[in-house]
Amino acid sequence: MAAASSVAGPIGGASPRGRVAGAANKGQQTRQLIVDAALDLAETAGLEGLSIGSLAAHVGMSKSGVFAHFGSREELQISVLKEYDRRFTNEIFQPALAQARGLPRVRALFDNWMARASVEIRSGCIFIGGAVEFDDRPGAVRDVLVASVQAWLTALERAVRQAIDEGHLLPEAQPEQLVFEIHGLILALHYEARLLHKPAAVDRARKGFEDVLSRYVQPGRLR
Amino acid sequence: MAAASSVAGPIGGASPRGRVAGAANKGQQTRQLIVDAALDLAETAGLEGLSIGSLAAHVGMSKSGVFAHFGSREELQISVLKEYDRRFTNEIFQPALAQARGLPRVRALFDNWMARASVEIRSGCIFIGGAVEFDDRPGAVRDVLVASVQAWLTALERAVRQAIDEGHLLPEAQPEQLVFEIHGLILALHYEARLLHKPAAVDRARKGFEDVLSRYVQPGRLR
Repeated sequence: MAAASSVAGPIGGASPRGRVAGAANKGQQTRQLIVDAALDLAETAGLEGLSIGSLAAHVGMSKSGVFAHFGSREELQISVLKEYDRRFTNEIFQPALAQARGLPRVRALFDNWMARASVEIRSGCIFIGGAVEFDDRPGAVRDVLVASVQAWLTALERAVRQAIDEGHLLPEAQPEQLVFEIHGLILALHYEARLLHKPAAVDRARKGFEDVLSRYVQPGRLR
Repeated sequence: MAAASSVAGPIGGASPRGRVAGAANKGQQTRQLIVDAALDLAETAGLEGLSIGSLAAHVGMSKSGVFAHFGSREELQISVLKEYDRRFTNEIFQPALAQARGLPRVRALFDNWMARASVEIRSGCIFIGGAVEFDDRPGAVRDVLVASVQAWLTALERAVRQAIDEGHLLPEAQPEQLVFEIHGLILALHYEARLLHKPAAVDRARKGFEDVLSRYVQPGRLR
């Protein structure tokens, strides 16, 4: 109880316990500010482009100040990945749960993913860039990346399976196959829009999604 | 004529002209040896992971020796990209031309691409890794990368268009859309096999290709 109330305590409270809680809160706020800045940097420079030095300059702190929050570059990279994963879940996965199970939710998950991918055409995607950086580097960063991406693909597969259970998609639809093909559309969108500067890639990804669904959707049910 | 015969002359010939030609040939051989080694390195470390120093150590030459062949790291990266492009064309595009225009050639192009992608699950792909490294870095390396990838996608689109002209695919097939979807399958294969270690990704990409074709293939024609 004491621990819980001190975590919930006001910043800069008058009691000794309040002051300790305030300092802890301040530390958390600073840490979050550093992680946010690191994520900004990583979206263009990549996780491997992150350094404590450049990050310190970016947030106007000393290197030792940043180092006090992240004991190593690897810990910083993991914190950035976890922050990206948290935002990805909040923006893409969570809002889709408001839609009915089945095809409506599958569509919402794809639409939200497309919305995020469209924004990332201007910056970059940690999950895509990180895959190239870490696919053959075993270690803690790779493990966190794999766990995040796999959790997302599994959530999509579950939504597709529910759409089969609800009778919206035909029983012969294979969730892993559909999700593989949809993942490919997002990867192609990212590649063709970012490297090849093809604005039509957004429409192609949307049409590709309809094409994938059209093979397995129950006759008469389009949405 | 003199220039042509000296280029075609034997290595280490006895005449003064032959010695000059031999030296030029030796220089070309050394250059090719360095490019081959650089491509090996770049497939795992990326184009940005190439340095004249590490490459010199790899081929057992001095840095200045390597530097004599490539005036800058950028020139080295471009040479690696061009070598990769040359191999890609020789292994994937050229053999497919032996197949009849239309669906047989489209299938051969995809099969050859899959064969290459399956090998690259163990190493890495310069076109995919390079896209992440250079998508927001304007310059000569990016330009060469874009030109190579775009030439390949255009060749695929041409093959799909021929398949429509031959009556193998329905007239409503859109070559750019089909190639976008097929490109996505290769990207998903690379992502899921390399990062997520899913061996089933190879079969999923093949099934995805059949799914894409099945929407547009003329009734009664499967191959």
